[in-house]
Formats: sequence, structure tokens, C-alpha cells
Amino acid sequence: MPSYIAPVKDTQYLLHDVLKVSQSDIPGFSDLDSEFTGAVLEEAGKLTSEVLFPLNAVGDREGCVLENGVVRTPTGFKAAFDQVREGGWTALDMPEEFGGQGLPHIMGTAVGEYFSAANQAFTMYQGLTHGAASAILAHGTQEQKETYLPKMTSCEWTGTMNLTEPHCGTDLGMMRTKAVPNGDGTYKISGQKIFISAGEHNMSENIIHLVLAKIQGGPEGIKGVSLFIVPKFMVKADGSLGARNGVSCGKLEEKMGIHGNATCVMNYDEATGLLLGEEHKGMRAMFTMMNEARLGVGMQGLAQADVAYQNALAYAKDRLQGRDVTGVKNPNGPADPLIVHPDIRRSLMDQKSFIEAARAFMFWGAALIDRAQRNNDAAADGLISLLTPVIKGFLTDEGYDMTVKAQQVYGGHGYIEEWGMSQFTRDARIAMIYEGANGVQALDLVGRKLAQDGGKHVIAFFDLVKTFIKENDGNEALKKDFLDPLKAASKDLQASAMFFMQNGMKNPNAALAGSNDFMHLFGHVCLGLMWGMMAKASLEALANGAADVTFHETKLATGRYYMARRLPATSLHLARINSGAEPVMSLDAANF
Amino acid sequence: MPSYIAPVKDTQYLLHDVLKVSQSDIPGFSDLDSEFTGAVLEEAGKLTSEVLFPLNAVGDREGCVLENGVVRTPTGFKAAFDQVREGGWTALDMPEEFGGQGLPHIMGTAVGEYFSAANQAFTMYQGLTHGAASAILAHGTQEQKETYLPKMTSCEWTGTMNLTEPHCGTDLGMMRTKAVPNGDGTYKISGQKIFISAGEHNMSENIIHLVLAKIQGGPEGIKGVSLFIVPKFMVKADGSLGARNGVSCGKLEEKMGIHGNATCVMNYDEATGLLLGEEHKGMRAMFTMMNEARLGVGMQGLAQADVAYQNALAYAKDRLQGRDVTGVKNPNGPADPLIVHPDIRRSLMDQKSFIEAARAFMFWGAALIDRAQRNNDAAADGLISLLTPVIKGFLTDEGYDMTVKAQQVYGGHGYIEEWGMSQFTRDARIAMIYEGANGVQALDLVGRKLAQDGGKHVIAFFDLVKTFIKENDGNEALKKDFLDPLKAASKDLQASAMFFMQNGMKNPNAALAGSNDFMHLFGHVCLGLMWGMMAKASLEALANGAADVTFHETKLATGRYYMARRLPATSLHLARINSGAEPVMSLDAANF
Repeated sequence: MPSYIAPVKDTQYLLHDVLKVSQSDIPGFSDLDSEFTGAVLEEAGKLTSEVLFPLNAVGDREGCVLENGVVRTPTGFKAAFDQVREGGWTALDMPEEFGGQGLPHIMGTAVGEYFSAANQAFTMYQGLTHGAASAILAHGTQEQKETYLPKMTSCEWTGTMNLTEPHCGTDLGMMRTKAVPNGDGTYKISGQKIFISAGEHNMSENIIHLVLAKIQGGPEGIKGVSLFIVPKFMVKADGSLGARNGVSCGKLEEKMGIHGNATCVMNYDEATGLLLGEEHKGMRAMFTMMNEARLGVGMQGLAQADVAYQNALAYAKDRLQGRDVTGVKNPNGPADPLIVHPDIRRSLMDQKSFIEAARAFMFWGAALIDRAQRNNDAAADGLISLLTPVIKGFLTDEGYDMTVKAQQVYGGHGYIEEWGMSQFTRDARIAMIYEGANGVQALDLVGRKLAQDGGKHVIAFFDLVKTFIKENDGNEALKKDFLDPLKAASKDLQASAMFFMQNGMKNPNAALAGSNDFMHLFGHVCLGLMWGMMAKASLEALANGAADVTFHETKLATGRYYMARRLPATSLHLARINSGAEPVMSLDAANF
Repeated sequence: MPSYIAPVKDTQYLLHDVLKVSQSDIPGFSDLDSEFTGAVLEEAGKLTSEVLFPLNAVGDREGCVLENGVVRTPTGFKAAFDQVREGGWTALDMPEEFGGQGLPHIMGTAVGEYFSAANQAFTMYQGLTHGAASAILAHGTQEQKETYLPKMTSCEWTGTMNLTEPHCGTDLGMMRTKAVPNGDGTYKISGQKIFISAGEHNMSENIIHLVLAKIQGGPEGIKGVSLFIVPKFMVKADGSLGARNGVSCGKLEEKMGIHGNATCVMNYDEATGLLLGEEHKGMRAMFTMMNEARLGVGMQGLAQADVAYQNALAYAKDRLQGRDVTGVKNPNGPADPLIVHPDIRRSLMDQKSFIEAARAFMFWGAALIDRAQRNNDAAADGLISLLTPVIKGFLTDEGYDMTVKAQQVYGGHGYIEEWGMSQFTRDARIAMIYEGANGVQALDLVGRKLAQDGGKHVIAFFDLVKTFIKENDGNEALKKDFLDPLKAASKDLQASAMFFMQNGMKNPNAALAGSNDFMHLFGHVCLGLMWGMMAKASLEALANGAADVTFHETKLATGRYYMARRLPATSLHLARINSGAEPVMSLDAANF
């Protein structure tokens, strides 16, 4: 009953009108002309709407089944995965050297949104593979790269990340999984890992587990953690599959959502592991994967919000209920469509204005990654590192709220599984939790990223906003509706950073008590900046006689909504931050 | 794995320290001394913790099953329902004349919270019965009362409300279910109703459906709707059960939550119905039930927040993860408990400060109902009528958010069904939807209640806040932390009402675009007032040498948190309201 249409026009608008990718100095971007990206996006749109989305409800209903150590994925998942693989969709932005297409990360991001929106549980199988491959690419030996990357690029072999254990999630220093050297360069890995997405399944020939473990005799705590490649089937010298390794799935978790993805308890029983990167430097290697995963999860927040919104919008236009208080709009029907009602509009505009700016934010962030990697640009790298927790935390918190709003538009039908709206919220819920719960993102942002490299990345962000406002100061059409609110919001962000500087040294809790608010404040300023950039692009397009006047005027109206009704949240966040540690910390734990 | 402990101490505090019920002039309140209420609450606490809560997860897992027209409720539900019935818990605040105990509504509210928190799906069976009985009590003939009320008071017979049809929920004027007079005072009822909670089940001998239908030949639209009593089994003159009536359950809905409650498609096929109240005045009669149900649903928001919070708190104290940045708190353990971390505190304080004030708000509202009914006080009746949409809409929106926050404290475990946190959010989600979706509550508040009786009820509310502030102006301990923020928030509420007055006449959408924000703004001011009242009570208790100093100091700290960090949301809501209709309504529906 629900449907999904990939927002190709909006993607093209961002790539070409707003970010003007083909004029960029980033190597590879000049190839991204509108015709080429349009063709890729149309194909991706077709695949995701017609093949992956219909399997979304199937996955939710059937879930995965563990029988005799084998995990059966939902009906149709394997065939669709073969189709995705054969279409080359898993290889888009992987290096050509290892069988990829070598496209910039921004193209992987653009296509990735459609995949996540159409079927989050399904897309995780390839998403995790991509992350694991990136870690091998960054930290593997040449031999490891040649052995694993071609098969992982094509998703003939999939990947996983194994961090969490029953007693430790965030605090990985307490990890118990151990690695004992075999003397031949390999290790025996033993222990239990939980919450392992795609840990076991029938969609690929082999599964390449990246596993954190402590080498016996190494340093205590997090400094003694190393990363290992542990294949499900050992890989022989000629690349063919050898013996089954000592790793097995002990249990599948029953979850609130993403039923189509197998969340496994993985047992390692003297499994053979190969060190990836350096001994005791496992966290650094894992963070290559983790940072990529965090951006992907931020995207999931946006993607579920979009598919939920598309259906809420369709329902609001279709469902007849009540009359427009300002005058009947559908005189030939028994009632007017829901969309005439102001509070339904308010909800739809909340969703629309978030989604379009969040999409811009994702693409803008992806371009920063491309700049960092392809231009070796340390400033871009520092900025995206700062923004990663904002993308992950803010977009998934907001994205989830938007799925709840979309569900609400359906009234009672929103609560009935058959209508499909419940799945969007249940699936979206996990994104606030995995790859570092959003509280951990806020902690990372305020406790680590903000002061990194002497705070120069946040200063660069402030400068960037300031420069945008200054450069466009003479643009009267932008000023009142976009630049002025952005300036006010940015001032709130600076004031909160200042509060942390002045109080956080004396009492770290004064900053940490406001960390969640700061992450949201930062997110709003980023989306405000995106709306400023989009408004500028649409005003330019209109001035240049763009054919689709309605498209650009709609952008401007949607942006004005965000600036008038959403962005002012920054002052509430600032007020909370300024209240400091005292209200949050004054109770003794025993007195709760 | 999760647990529930009824918050008896907090209930007693509200009844006796804050509302001082036994000193009230409301008839029946003087009997509510602390010993009596304590005994009732302790018993209710025992029953809900030990009998109903363990069945909560069972109900979620098993759900209800329809076989050959019969609905089987989850294992243990029927036996527990018998126990509840035999304990007299369904009869607490029903009139003695019909077998009830005649206690004030406030006692039903106090006990009702525990029931809803322990098992919302289960409690709905008796909650709907209570609502249907109230409608018969208010609108039935003496014969109808004598026939139905004793059995409904004891829940030997349960009740339902039948409003929604597939094509109409809020807009009941489009209803198609029809009533044809039989000539003997009875009617033949035919049509289909959906989303009928407890529509069919095996927990009672008979089910008394209250059904809205249109009498053939009556006025068009909502003015032609009448309310009927349609028993599952006809009741003979001697009170015994007769023939099965022409009503049956066609389908059970699969829902996101409240699986233990049977949500039925009900088919009426020339079923015999008895008019309840006057012809074509069905909506008025239904609203007796509906208003009671809306308050009950507001309570569900609070109740699910509380049970979720209790478990989040226990987990935060128990789960060891990371170290307090200001110094190790658990040197003998591998890590400190989660509760040392400021962002976990922030989440717990959000929950705690909402729950305690929401509970006060429910009780204060219940006392208004008792005053309206027992003192025939029109002002109290007007005020609770104004506040009903605030209680329903604000407490369920916030209550749901709080269950999400509680779930988040569990990290990954929050997403796994086995840990129980997912059920609290899934069950809480429905409360934002049923008995009038929260957008409809906001519309009712702004479009109807605000201006009712010349706006005198909202003016009475403003006066009440003003009087509270003025009367306590000399109380220095209250002033800065409680009275000043309350004054500021109340000013925001008045400013928004002023905006509606000045703009709503010219353009109703200028008011309706801000209706959701107004409902939330109003809710925050109400909870701010509650914290003011609680702070005053606790300061008095401390001054009078209360034994439990920690309890009262904790109240004050929790209240300060609300005033410093939650109440300032009023200015954001006001800013949105002041932005008027334009941002919300500017897009043409076709351009979304």
C-alpha cells in the first residue's frame, strides 16, 4: 500500500543548481555532468522503487530465521541482492583498482539515499560491506586489499563490524574478546559479540567479519584493542574458499524494526583472524569504518523521513475529512482533503523543510569528504570530522520525529501495520541508537571534536557562515527571510560555544549537560545554512529564467518555513545550555 | 525483565501535601484521609505490580486471536480480569446506587494511573466500560440505568464506543451506519465500524456497544447522528441474557502496539439497538464518554512515561559504562554507572520532571471534575472542558517522547523486544492518535474551547495563575526559581491568545496554524503551575519539620529543572504562533 519514488529532481537540483558539482575543482567532479548523474539516478530510482521497496514490507513481516546455524533472509532478498550486485550498484564509489567505478563519494551518497529509503534493512547488507571494505582499503596490507576488496566491492562477499559485547557497548575498553598469536602471523579469536548486523545470512558466498579483540599481554583498556579480519570461510592463496572458520551465529535478536536485517549474536571460538592495521591500534582502524557508518546512519534518518513523508503527503491529498474553515475546497466531494487543514500543513511543512535541507546537508558533507580525500584537504577533513556527530545525531533524532509526524497524518490507520507507516518509525528508531547512541554523538561533539586542533574547525564553520552572509548581504531577496535568521541562529551557536569555553574548563559537566542541545543547535544552523544556499540558488535560477518557476518558488516557500518556524529553536537550546550543569546534576543518584 | 512499582508515595504527596484533599469543601473529599487513601493505593499498587504488569509482555507477545467469531485474549488476561472485578477495582468511583463505591473521581484517577502503567492494553477493557457506563448514567432512562449499570460497574458486562467507519474518523458527519425504527421503540442498526477497542473478547458475559448511527430520514451530516445501546446478547426483562444480537467481529487489526487489546472491525447487521438520549443528539451523548476517554488517554501518556522511566532509571544505575569525567565514582568496578553521565541525567530529569508534574496536573484536573459534579460548579466544569484537549494532546505527545527517551537510555538493548522498552513506546504511540488525534485536540482547543462562553474559562485560568503568583510573592524561596519563570511563561500564553484574538477573526488559519504550538505552550504553563504548587507544598513541609527532608528537597530540585530547562519552550512556541498562517499555508497543495 505505501509507495516510494526516488526524488531524482531534487537530487539533481542539489548536485547542479546548488553545489554545481561539475564546476568543482575536486578531481572527478567535472565528469558529473547533469546528463550523466541524471541517468545514474533514474536507474537507481527505478531499481529502488520497483525492486527494493516492495520487499520492505516483506522483510518487516517475515524477518530473518536462524535454523541449524544458517540464517534465512526474507523472501526475495537474495534475488534482489543479486540484481543490485549485477547492476554494479555496490561498486559505485569504490576504487577502480579493486573493481569499483571510482565515482566520487557524493554519487554514492546520492544513490545511497534511495536505497536506504526504499529498504533500510536490505541496504544494510551492502552498507556494512562498504564500511568494512573502506577499513581494509585504509589499513590493510596490499595482499589483504587484493584478497578481499574485489569480492567485497561486488558484494560477492559481505562485511560486518564487531564491536559490542554483552557488558560493553560504548565503553569498549572493557572488551573481553581475546586474540592469541598463532606464531604464523595469524591469531586465534575467542569471545562473544552482540548486535552484529548482517552477521550471518544466505546472500553472499562469504562474510568478512572485522572484529575488535585484545591481544593477550597487550595494554589494559582501550589501548590494548586491535582489529582483525575474520572470514566466515578461510580464503586460500588462489582466492577460492577454504575451510569454515570458528565463527557462528548463536542467536538472532527480535527487534522493534529492521526485521529484514539479521542482528546476530556472534560466537568466536578460536577463529582464525588476520591483524588489520597495527597491533593495539584497532580503534583507529575501526573508526575509518565507524565514521563512514555514522554518516550512513545520518542518511537513514533522512531517508526514512522522506519515504514516510511521501506517503503522508499522498494520504493528506487523498483522504477526505472535514472542510477548510476558510471555504470549501472540494465542493463535489463529501469533504475536503486533509491537506487543507492548517495543522496537517504544519506537520507536512515540518517534514518537507527538514528533508530537503537534510539532503543538502548530506550532499554538502559528502563533497567535503571528496575534497578531503581527492584534494588531500586537511581543512575539509577537519570540518567533516566535526560535523559527523551532528549529521548522525541531529538527522536521526529529527528524522525519527518526522516519521512519527508522518504516521500521525494517517490518524488511526497510522497505527495499523497493514498501512505501512508504523514500519517507517520502527525502522527509523534504530538510527538514533546504533553506531554510537546519539548521546555519545553529542559527547563526541562537545567533549572531543569542538576543541580539536585548537578549535579551528568550529571557527572555520563560523567563518563559512559569516562569509556566506557577507557575500550575499546585498541580496535583498535573501536578506530578511534567510540571512537575518541565519545570522541570529549562528550567534546562538557561537554564544553556546563561548559558554562551554568559559565554563567547561572549570567544570566539564557544565558543557556536557548542554551537549545534546548543542548538537541540535548546531544541526539547525547547518540546515539554516543549507536553506540559505538553496534559496540563493533558486533565486538565481529564477533570475536566469529557469523553466520550472514553480519548483524554485516552492523551494523558497519551504525555506522560509524553516527559517520562520524551525530555526528559532536555537534560542531555546541556547537557554538550556546557559542554565549549565546545576539543574541537570544537582540530584544525588540515590535520590532519583 | 522490566518491572513496575506503583508510585504510592508520590500519589499520597499530591493528594495530601499539595491538594490537601481531606480539607476540601468538595462533598466526599473529607473522607479521603491519608490512612484510607494509603490503604487503597497500596492494595492497587500490589495488584498492578504483581498481577497486571507481568501480563503486559504476555499480551504484547501473544496478542488477541479471532477464531470462528470468538476473540481469545492473551493467556492470563481473563483470570486477572476476574481478580480485578472481584476486588471491586472497576467500581471505585461509580455511584453506590448501581453497585459502585461512590468514591470521588480523583481516587479513580489515582488508581487508574497504576492500572494504565502496569498494562495499558488490559486496562482498556475496563476503561471503555467505565466510559460507556458514564454515558448511560448521564443520558440513559432509569430503566436503561437499572438494566446495564450494575453489570457494567462490576465489569461482568463490558462496554465499547463505536464511532469510526472506514471512510470517516474525525468527520463523523459522513457516517453511513444507519438505524431503522422497528416501531416498538427499538431500531435496526446496520453498518461497519472500525478501530473498536475491546469490540469482541472472552473476558465478560456480555458486551454493551454504544454505537453512533443515523436514523433514516433524519437531518443530514453530524446533526442526524444518534447514539444507540447495542448489546452483544439481548437482555431479557428479568436481567438474564437472551438471544445473540446481529453484531459480530469481522477482523482484528494488527497494530504497532497494545496487542493485548482486541481492536475490531465490527459488523452490524440489523442488530437491535436502543436509543440512548435523544434522537439526533448522539454526539452530545457520545461526548460524555469521549471527554472521559480523553482524560483517560492523557493519563496513558503519563503512565507509559512513568513505567518506562522507572526501568530506564534502574538501568542507568545498574549498567556500568564509561567513567564520570569529573572523577571516578565506582572505583571498585570496571566502570561507573550510566547515571554519572550528564546527558543520561538530562534525559532522566526530562522524564522525571515531566512525570511528576503531569501526575499533579491529572489529579488537579480530576479534582476540577469532582468539583464540577459534586458542587455543581459551572466554572470548574468550564475550566476542565478547556483543559481536556491540553491534557489529552500535550500529555500524550510528551508522554510518548519520554518513552522514547527512556528507551534510548538502554542503548542497543532498548531496541531488542526482550528488554521490554520497545513495548512502552509502541503502546504509548496510540495515545497520540485515538479519541481524537492530537491535531484534532489542538483544533478543539483553539477553534472551540478558547472562545467558549466569551473566553471566560481561559481568563479564569490566567487569573488563577496570576493569583497563585501574587499570593506567594513574598515567598523568596519560591520567587526566583518558580514564580518568575511561571510568570514569563504565562505571559507567553497570554500573548499567543492575544495573537489569535487579533488575527483569528480576519483569518482563522492564522490561529489554526499555531494550534499545535498553543496546545504545547498551554501544557507547559500548566506543568509550570503544578511545579509552583508542589514547590510551595514542599517548602511548607520542610518549614514544618517534615521527616522526609530528602523527598522534599528532591521535589524542589526536580521542579527547578523543569522551570530552568523545559518551561522556556513557551517562547519558541510563541515565536512560531506569531509567525502566523503565511509560512504554513503559502504553498498550493499541488506544489508540495
